[in-house]
Amino acid sequence: MRKTVGIIGGMGPAATCDLMEKIVALTSARCDQEHLHLIADVNTSIPDRTAAILHGGPDPVPELQKSARLLEKAGAQLLLMPCNTAHYFYDQVAAAVTVPVLHMPNETAAVLRQAGIKTAGVLATDGTVRSGVYEKALAAAGIKAVYPSAAMQEQVMRLIYDGVKARSAPLESIPVPDILAQLRQQGAQCFLLACTELPIAFARLGLEKDCLDPTRVLALAAVRAAGGVPAAADPW
Amino acid sequence: MRKTVGIIGGMGPAATCDLMEKIVALTSARCDQEHLHLIADVNTSIPDRTAAILHGGPDPVPELQKSARLLEKAGAQLLLMPCNTAHYFYDQVAAAVTVPVLHMPNETAAVLRQAGIKTAGVLATDGTVRSGVYEKALAAAGIKAVYPSAAMQEQVMRLIYDGVKARSAPLESIPVPDILAQLRQQGAQCFLLACTELPIAFARLGLEKDCLDPTRVLALAAVRAAGGVPAAADPW
Repeated sequence: MRKTVGIIGGMGPAATCDLMEKIVALTSARCDQEHLHLIADVNTSIPDRTAAILHGGPDPVPELQKSARLLEKAGAQLLLMPCNTAHYFYDQVAAAVTVPVLHMPNETAAVLRQAGIKTAGVLATDGTVRSGVYEKALAAAGIKAVYPSAAMQEQVMRLIYDGVKARSAPLESIPVPDILAQLRQQGAQCFLLACTELPIAFARLGLEKDCLDPTRVLALAAVRAAGGVPAAADPW
Repeated sequence: MRKTVGIIGGMGPAATCDLMEKIVALTSARCDQEHLHLIADVNTSIPDRTAAILHGGPDPVPELQKSARLLEKAGAQLLLMPCNTAHYFYDQVAAAVTVPVLHMPNETAAVLRQAGIKTAGVLATDGTVRSGVYEKALAAAGIKAVYPSAAMQEQVMRLIYDGVKARSAPLESIPVPDILAQLRQQGAQCFLLACTELPIAFARLGLEKDCLDPTRVLALAAVRAAGGVPAAADPW
């Protein structure tokens, strides 16, 4: 019996669509009925996660828990949270429901370990970077995390907030190749696109080489955990 | 106060993602919180609509109504059904809930009338074509519907079922330009991509000229009806 997958979404809305598309693409199915049953709550009332972690902004936990409970009540048997930064609040979200919540950074760390990666460059929001969400998950798997310089981290934030969320800056205006070169100099063997808006930007820019997309990791883990037939052997 | 939009999805799952992406792209928003609250039930237990209409397959109405009720209960104040063929069952779905359900073919016909179109080529599933879902909506708006020949209609079905749903046939193997030329000969001034899988195929093929995408029509109508800020003046 396949499980219904619930998605705590809206962080941002484009990233929710991206996860859903990846789940559909990573499911081997000959017709609609062989796909997984998904329920997505694109809850755009969830306050900004980075603002809450770093700048005393409104606490996103009540809305995160509200979505988790709504999805469980609607029949979801397994939950996903397509927002890396939101995993800072993972324990509080998981505690609000009785169904399991997949942990995107831990799933990603497991894939890196499997691939023999020792050092990974982390591209993420300030909230994810400074709260150490990925650092902890990677350290537990014996992997070192390296980060862009402060100036380059500002450019990563522009890519996420202006380039994807607001669509107010052309993606090409941001020096992404320079950011990647800087991470390589620090020993990065691969790049984690550890904000759910980044795979969208990198796909548009055609810069996906050596990148691991935690959204894709989560999608494949969800297909497996829900009892679907995976359409790929690994998420690279 | 903006309305929460519920999506009766899974027909197919890719089309649900496509509608959600179009709603996000057609909403003018500077941050996550300015986007609409969406709840999508990707209910892959809904039986095939064309099979039910034409070949005595299982009735999709109970599952359609189940999704509609689930979404209303979860807080949706306005429902969408991203499947043209499913509009054959529109009255039964709308009767199951107290919230309004937007009618994709009627919204599409209104856009065509506004553009002064007199004859439109309809590309759709056998179920949509033979049940006259679009013919009725267009006739009410004073617009003539023309269709591919029987042989070409088979190719449209291959495009939908093998090309998009099952991903088992390369899109380029289907003579789409010939289908469009045949419709032009019958006086079609534009082409309705009246199966939610077709805009996905046409975008991949780069054949969107003179095409109207009812998914995009529905997305823009939903943004307006839910009180969001539309990012485009019309859906062409």
